[in-house]
Amino acid sequence: MTRAFADRLIEKTREFGPLCVGIDPHPGLFPELFGKPSAGAIAVWADGIIEAAAGQVACIKPQAAFFELWGSVGMAALEHVCKTARDADLLVILDAKRGDIGSTAKGYADAYLGETAACPCDALTVNPFMGYETLQPFIDAADPNGRGIAVLTRTSNPGAADIQELDFGGEPIFLRLAREFNKLGKPLKGDETDWSGFMFVAGATAPDEARKIRSAAPDNLFLVPGYGAQGAGADQAVSGFIPIKGTLEGGVVNASRSVTFPEAAQNAGSTEEWQTAIRDAIAFAQDDLRKATRRNVD
Amino acid sequence: MTRAFADRLIEKTREFGPLCVGIDPHPGLFPELFGKPSAGAIAVWADGIIEAAAGQVACIKPQAAFFELWGSVGMAALEHVCKTARDADLLVILDAKRGDIGSTAKGYADAYLGETAACPCDALTVNPFMGYETLQPFIDAADPNGRGIAVLTRTSNPGAADIQELDFGGEPIFLRLAREFNKLGKPLKGDETDWSGFMFVAGATAPDEARKIRSAAPDNLFLVPGYGAQGAGADQAVSGFIPIKGTLEGGVVNASRSVTFPEAAQNAGSTEEWQTAIRDAIAFAQDDLRKATRRNVD
Repeated sequence: MTRAFADRLIEKTREFGPLCVGIDPHPGLFPELFGKPSAGAIAVWADGIIEAAAGQVACIKPQAAFFELWGSVGMAALEHVCKTARDADLLVILDAKRGDIGSTAKGYADAYLGETAACPCDALTVNPFMGYETLQPFIDAADPNGRGIAVLTRTSNPGAADIQELDFGGEPIFLRLAREFNKLGKPLKGDETDWSGFMFVAGATAPDEARKIRSAAPDNLFLVPGYGAQGAGADQAVSGFIPIKGTLEGGVVNASRSVTFPEAAQNAGSTEEWQTAIRDAIAFAQDDLRKATRRNVD
Repeated sequence: MTRAFADRLIEKTREFGPLCVGIDPHPGLFPELFGKPSAGAIAVWADGIIEAAAGQVACIKPQAAFFELWGSVGMAALEHVCKTARDADLLVILDAKRGDIGSTAKGYADAYLGETAACPCDALTVNPFMGYETLQPFIDAADPNGRGIAVLTRTSNPGAADIQELDFGGEPIFLRLAREFNKLGKPLKGDETDWSGFMFVAGATAPDEARKIRSAAPDNLFLVPGYGAQGAGADQAVSGFIPIKGTLEGGVVNASRSVTFPEAAQNAGSTEEWQTAIRDAIAFAQDDLRKATRRNVD
């Protein structure tokens, strides 16, 4: 039987802590060491990061936009990255923020979460703007295959306030969504844990909001962006987590730039030096987050 | 100098009427004539539709999901379709509903709207859920290259009500968005017409809402889904259009299933027969919409 995504993810965060390594091959930050950015070059770069992350963290989160930038060969690089990471026993949360109606949503869901997915991932980020019904095809694809989804709830950017925080009937929209998402996410609940693999994207830059979302949705794992380069610290990042077995638990915290483009890596003279810098940055963030989950447990 | 997308689109709708042919290679509807659905087969099928549509309609709208379904080879097929259509003098509105923060949004924008775009399109559909700031990279990429965007405002599906219609301060959110989008869209205004290439996706299934959006945003072109298979008629589809030069003008109306999978095409025994059925369905929809733009002009 296929194990639920929530159970698979929690098993790994209990071993490695909540760090998720973001794979965002931003052309403007691409290290000279790997040559001019191209679909092939970013695949080689990502392979080096996956090698450094394997056996150290629970999951990676590739950012689809920076692969699509290179067109179909970029998508081939993304498929390679997802496959390589999964072969290295890392869970893959693809950050593609897809969303559409009915049969179109099913197209996206089958592409990334289906049994015969062309680009198989463990979870996919989804945009809920078109309504609750548009999430169902993603849930339907994820459920039988032990996959998850991560739905935008309260994002980490300033513009999140424009729609997500509008007050409706005395509460912000993101809270209304959280309550509804919680109900929708029941089919993705694990058998071994109480967590649901219907994750919420809840930004580290808004810790109070994360706590409110947690109250409204006690069993949904969080995918927390905004830690590190976007300005939020580890304590803020885990503010929506809850005490379980002497630590805080409740999802994963993504770090992209701070772990994949640290200064020491950008200035590295060899791939060995570069990979050591990546390993150090991953270890630093992992330790920072683990300490926060222990410091704030009471 | 690069001509604005709004001017290029209006020139064509004045010649051909408002029909936009949706290219949605839905695997469940794929005609037997073209063999088993695959990335190659859908490219051949789409080529046949483009050939039938060239010189007959203003634009096509490929649905990214049904190409992504086939992975990187599907994306290669999408690139082929976009290139073939543009070579045939059809404008291409890619329906990919992308959206993300800052540099990530720029990645998507460069991929589809940039000067050296890997998959060059004339316009791209965009999801605004993450806030107004997240639209700016798309505008910035579109503006200098004579491209446009089509931002989800009030979609055609029932679930549109869940977020887009929530009442905020006495008006639904989609109207608030329309007003703000109107301001943001000024850089994409044409030189030859008063229209802006910052289009709004405003569903044909909600004609009253379309009229309200038009009042709030007099110069934004509409991309109207929901006509035909989704249940709305031609009169409803053009309800957000306004009288100009003895006809109604204001955007394009998409038809996918009704023109690309008509019954006569599904049962065709040869590609000639199939293409004749496609041509007939396109002509029928074009005529239906043109009549509505003339019937409702007063």
